[in-house]
Amino acid sequence: MKATTIHGTRDIRFGEVADPVLQAPTDAIVKVVAGCICGSDLWPYRGENPITAGDTIGHECVGVVEEVGSDVRDFKAGDFVVVPFDHCDNTCAHCQVGMQSACVNLGMTNSGQGEYARVAQADGSLVATNGTPDAAMLPSLLALSDVMPTGWHAAVAAGVRKGGTVVVVGDGAVGLCGVLAAAQMGAEKVIAMSRHEPRQKIATAFGATHLIAERGKEGAAAVKEITGGVGADAVLECVGTDQSMGTAFAVARPGAMVGFVGVPHGVELPVRRMFQKNVGLAGGMAPVRRYLPELLDLVTSGTINPGLVFDLTLPMADVAEGYAAMDERRAIKVMLQP
Amino acid sequence: MKATTIHGTRDIRFGEVADPVLQAPTDAIVKVVAGCICGSDLWPYRGENPITAGDTIGHECVGVVEEVGSDVRDFKAGDFVVVPFDHCDNTCAHCQVGMQSACVNLGMTNSGQGEYARVAQADGSLVATNGTPDAAMLPSLLALSDVMPTGWHAAVAAGVRKGGTVVVVGDGAVGLCGVLAAAQMGAEKVIAMSRHEPRQKIATAFGATHLIAERGKEGAAAVKEITGGVGADAVLECVGTDQSMGTAFAVARPGAMVGFVGVPHGVELPVRRMFQKNVGLAGGMAPVRRYLPELLDLVTSGTINPGLVFDLTLPMADVAEGYAAMDERRAIKVMLQP
Repeated sequence: MKATTIHGTRDIRFGEVADPVLQAPTDAIVKVVAGCICGSDLWPYRGENPITAGDTIGHECVGVVEEVGSDVRDFKAGDFVVVPFDHCDNTCAHCQVGMQSACVNLGMTNSGQGEYARVAQADGSLVATNGTPDAAMLPSLLALSDVMPTGWHAAVAAGVRKGGTVVVVGDGAVGLCGVLAAAQMGAEKVIAMSRHEPRQKIATAFGATHLIAERGKEGAAAVKEITGGVGADAVLECVGTDQSMGTAFAVARPGAMVGFVGVPHGVELPVRRMFQKNVGLAGGMAPVRRYLPELLDLVTSGTINPGLVFDLTLPMADVAEGYAAMDERRAIKVMLQP
Repeated sequence: MKATTIHGTRDIRFGEVADPVLQAPTDAIVKVVAGCICGSDLWPYRGENPITAGDTIGHECVGVVEEVGSDVRDFKAGDFVVVPFDHCDNTCAHCQVGMQSACVNLGMTNSGQGEYARVAQADGSLVATNGTPDAAMLPSLLALSDVMPTGWHAAVAAGVRKGGTVVVVGDGAVGLCGVLAAAQMGAEKVIAMSRHEPRQKIATAFGATHLIAERGKEGAAAVKEITGGVGADAVLECVGTDQSMGTAFAVARPGAMVGFVGVPHGVELPVRRMFQKNVGLAGGMAPVRRYLPELLDLVTSGTINPGLVFDLTLPMADVAEGYAAMDERRAIKVMLQP
């Protein structure tokens, strides 16, 4: 098949690789209908994570089941499915408490920017749509494979409540989905820290009630002003840098939680400040499967439209241009189609 | 009056200092009936926190109101009161959400190991008992000024739930009160990490279902065995060192919370591990006033007896011996009486 591979810093190629095959009777092979590029793919792209040259890359996709292993009971060839980036059996002790991202049989999609992807623990991982979706719904379904459940997880981890005040740090696709999650959960004030107009527009469409373009101390001061000097009840940290984490703690009120979903890079947590202010931190890799049924309902009913985060769609063969566009912030998130 | 002062490393004295006076119309002066030494007092005692030579020390006490400022309405001379170590107005935005330890009018008891103590925001801070308590109840009431609400706060921050599995790291007085809190909140398994027999006995009396004497990797392995390889639903970190924090994260199951109440000293939080395991951290200085009404009921009804943590009572004049006894781990917690 053809798939995306990474060969070095800013060296992304689309070419021939071995077809994925069933490796276990619980596996399925999915023919990718749409894949996309994740903000976290930019870490290896920029040389900030180690890579093995020639490896396939891409962990987000939706598609049609091509083939299933002999132990797969709930899916058959032809089913249209959302593929969580983190595969799980959905039955182990961790899955049972909603921590599918720590499943004892955890797997990961690794050719979501290719023509086919292998899914481990297909019965536990996959969620089927009701028939083949309209093309118009494709972006929002694709968003369910990672970015929307990840923003949702940030909101859950931060303890977002009806009527509360939420700050979202980071206006990437995950941050924007965090805005959508907070609004959907009934937060009264949803403050998006965003300085880029196209992203501000999506944040507003997703339910942001306030936009703050300032960063650092000025940004924190703006939050204080909006919250009458008190700070936010819940903060969603959707970047993963030391600076964004610092901002998250600076805008949190005493007793608040910071929900973090950006893979931390160079973050030193301010433990004494956390102690003094009683500001907690929770989050991590999103248990996508936990949230999928609810989020799929919200998407198919038209209640939420997370697909708005895709502002550029390219043929999969042009994937390298997609990475460059996201790296240079010319695109928020890029959808790829074979 | 006579009070305890600190003059340098391991230099504690009991002598004459200026009487505390009403500094604001919301203040009260309390005649100390019993004070005590806190684990956190050992940091400056051991030279690990900066001090000003000659300062009074001691933030825990119960006693009788001696005098109140002109704006104090709910208390009068003669009332027997529990004095939270952290004084609060109990009306500000932070107090209203249960974060009295971040009150905009925060104050601290600073001569709890002396004959009299000034309490700021008396109406917000103090809680009166129903009449003068029996001598037998004094230790448990004294425990309510800090150590018991602090253990309780750890359990609240860790999200202890009925039927859950809780690990308590630290067998000091706070850790033991954490055991008591977890048991009282209905945890099914309460695992106390304790290697000292007198502390193990109190842990058991407080409701610990399992005792683990091992530390580090062996201790974590023992928790894994008790929990069928899964780890704890909630972990109470009641020490404040990097090692104890490491143990807390090592025994937490994915999705768990670590509740921390030991003032952190040299702690570096394992942010990537927290992310990978989805283990959160919350806690800090306990909002004592928030928990006092409920805990006072539990004490006066005889439901809990946190006073058991006091295994040595000394005349206040012998306070230096009390510090030495705690420093050398000859005593768990020392009660002082004028």
